[in-house]
Amino acid sequence: MIKPAIIESGEFEGWMTWPSEPFEHDLMGPLHFRIDDKGPVCAFRAEHRHMNSGGVMHGGCLMSFADFSLFGIAHEHMKDDAYGLTVAFSSEFLDGPRVGEYVEARGEVLRAGGSLIFVRGLITSDGRPCLNFSGTIKRGRKK
Amino acid sequence: MIKPAIIESGEFEGWMTWPSEPFEHDLMGPLHFRIDDKGPVCAFRAEHRHMNSGGVMHGGCLMSFADFSLFGIAHEHMKDDAYGLTVAFSSEFLDGPRVGEYVEARGEVLRAGGSLIFVRGLITSDGRPCLNFSGTIKRGRKK
Amino acid sequence: MIKPAIIESGEFEGWMTWPSEPFEHDLMGPLHFRIDDKGPVCAFRAEHRHMNSGGVMHGGCLMSFADFSLFGIAHEHMKDDAYGLTVAFSSEFLDGPRVGEYVEARGEVLRAGGSLIFVRGLITSDGRPCLNFSGTIKRGRKK
Amino acid sequence: MIKPAIIESGEFEGWMTWPSEPFEHDLMGPLHFRIDDKGPVCAFRAEHRHMNSGGVMHGGCLMSFADFSLFGIAHEHMKDDAYGLTVAFSSEFLDGPRVGEYVEARGEVLRAGGSLIFVRGLITSDGRPCLNFSGTIKRGRKK
Repeated sequence: MIKPAIIESGEFEGWMTWPSEPFEHDLMGPLHFRIDDKGPVCAFRAEHRHMNSGGVMHGGCLMSFADFSLFGIAHEHMKDDAYGLTVAFSSEFLDGPRVGEYVEARGEVLRAGGSLIFVRGLITSDGRPCLNFSGTIKRGRKK
Repeated sequence: MIKPAIIESGEFEGWMTWPSEPFEHDLMGPLHFRIDDKGPVCAFRAEHRHMNSGGVMHGGCLMSFADFSLFGIAHEHMKDDAYGLTVAFSSEFLDGPRVGEYVEARGEVLRAGGSLIFVRGLITSDGRPCLNFSGTIKRGRKK
Repeated sequence: MIKPAIIESGEFEGWMTWPSEPFEHDLMGPLHFRIDDKGPVCAFRAEHRHMNSGGVMHGGCLMSFADFSLFGIAHEHMKDDAYGLTVAFSSEFLDGPRVGEYVEARGEVLRAGGSLIFVRGLITSDGRPCLNFSGTIKRGRKK
Repeated sequence: MIKPAIIESGEFEGWMTWPSEPFEHDLMGPLHFRIDDKGPVCAFRAEHRHMNSGGVMHGGCLMSFADFSLFGIAHEHMKDDAYGLTVAFSSEFLDGPRVGEYVEARGEVLRAGGSLIFVRGLITSDGRPCLNFSGTIKRGRKK
């Protein structure tokens, strides 16, 4: 797995991110993750550019953050010479984050097998449940 | 539903888009849809900014385009005074679009009821199947 | 919602069930639910008739129990004059229950809105995680 | 994959089934599949035992038939020394089959890779769309 970088300043100082990611880091990010005393946590701050025309976060933005979060949550189960691919993803939309809110994903690895990792999580925004998600990651190995 | 705009030049001249969308139009788009003789079709051209670190389209970008496509596919079932919200979404990842490819979604409305619309579709990239998706849209009405 | 019956003897004495259900009660059941100090819980005992040819519980049987469990988990959110229909369901298969094991589902209502209820849960068998599931219930009202 | 048996009489004469299946064959079945000129097709006749208390087919019964259908649809992609396990499944409920109706699933293999097979399908009842489904099968090999 590509080694994450440590963020050195700002609201997410000390968190990790994957910087060489054109879509999730450069375009819509940065997105952040770390391990705290409750387990893995992923987060970012909702901005105007993440919204839809109704003034809440676009469903695609929420799912993109959820896809990032699958890997943040599963990070400790991936070895350095491995990578992962999402093969299946499902979600339910509960509420929409608004500009300025703190958007967070927490979840757990339900099973980490030899070839597949199963993850589920919940995105909240300022504490309100917004997206329930689950995903299946297929392990790969760098050549 | 917000009235789409017609694109006036370039590769997608004559297609429709929703221009007042910070995430899907301004940040990752524009994304396009129209009705052709095979039914509704949605499309965009894959660029470097849509990729992940592995050189294929980010899963979140694919799902964001799929979420847009739910509404492109269901467009003829939405009246002018109505809007829709995605309430559930699921997908399987088959392959990854690469920079420069033509990414297209086609699909169908499986059922359009009074409160819910069920849509399924398939994203291809230069003809290769890439994402199977289905979603449930909840109808709303503007006040 | 149809009023559940109380089971009067046996392993599940004191639990509730819906008895007028040809498939879930008469054919594959009975299936049981109650509220304990950790919240709603659903359970049954795995028998040979629930298995597949590989000697573990059939995926369809697990999903049928999960569908029942959506309503057991959401039971306190349904009024007497209401009923519910599953409109979307997704799941990941983690492990397979074996004959004689105690199969249990626990979960939570993530959002109970005016027309839709979102539920997620996890089925375990003798404590091993077996099926992660989530579902969307549409409320109806008896005429 | 366990070799299917040919049905020798009745409405489904000439179709295939997997007979050593306690849940899907002995309890809720038999369920049937074959290949016709439009591709793989799975079917059974809806009976009272498959219903819920509302007089339509139980959601769990529909999903059990869908799970069977994943393997019917993928049958030509499985070699004799192989078996498959459903690892992820999702579905949307469009309508409910009633007693006496002919319930059919058709679908396609979207991708058959070395370790995973992706399938989607649609269940109809007397021609009405009832369940949209997709599933991911993990290949295994008998020892």
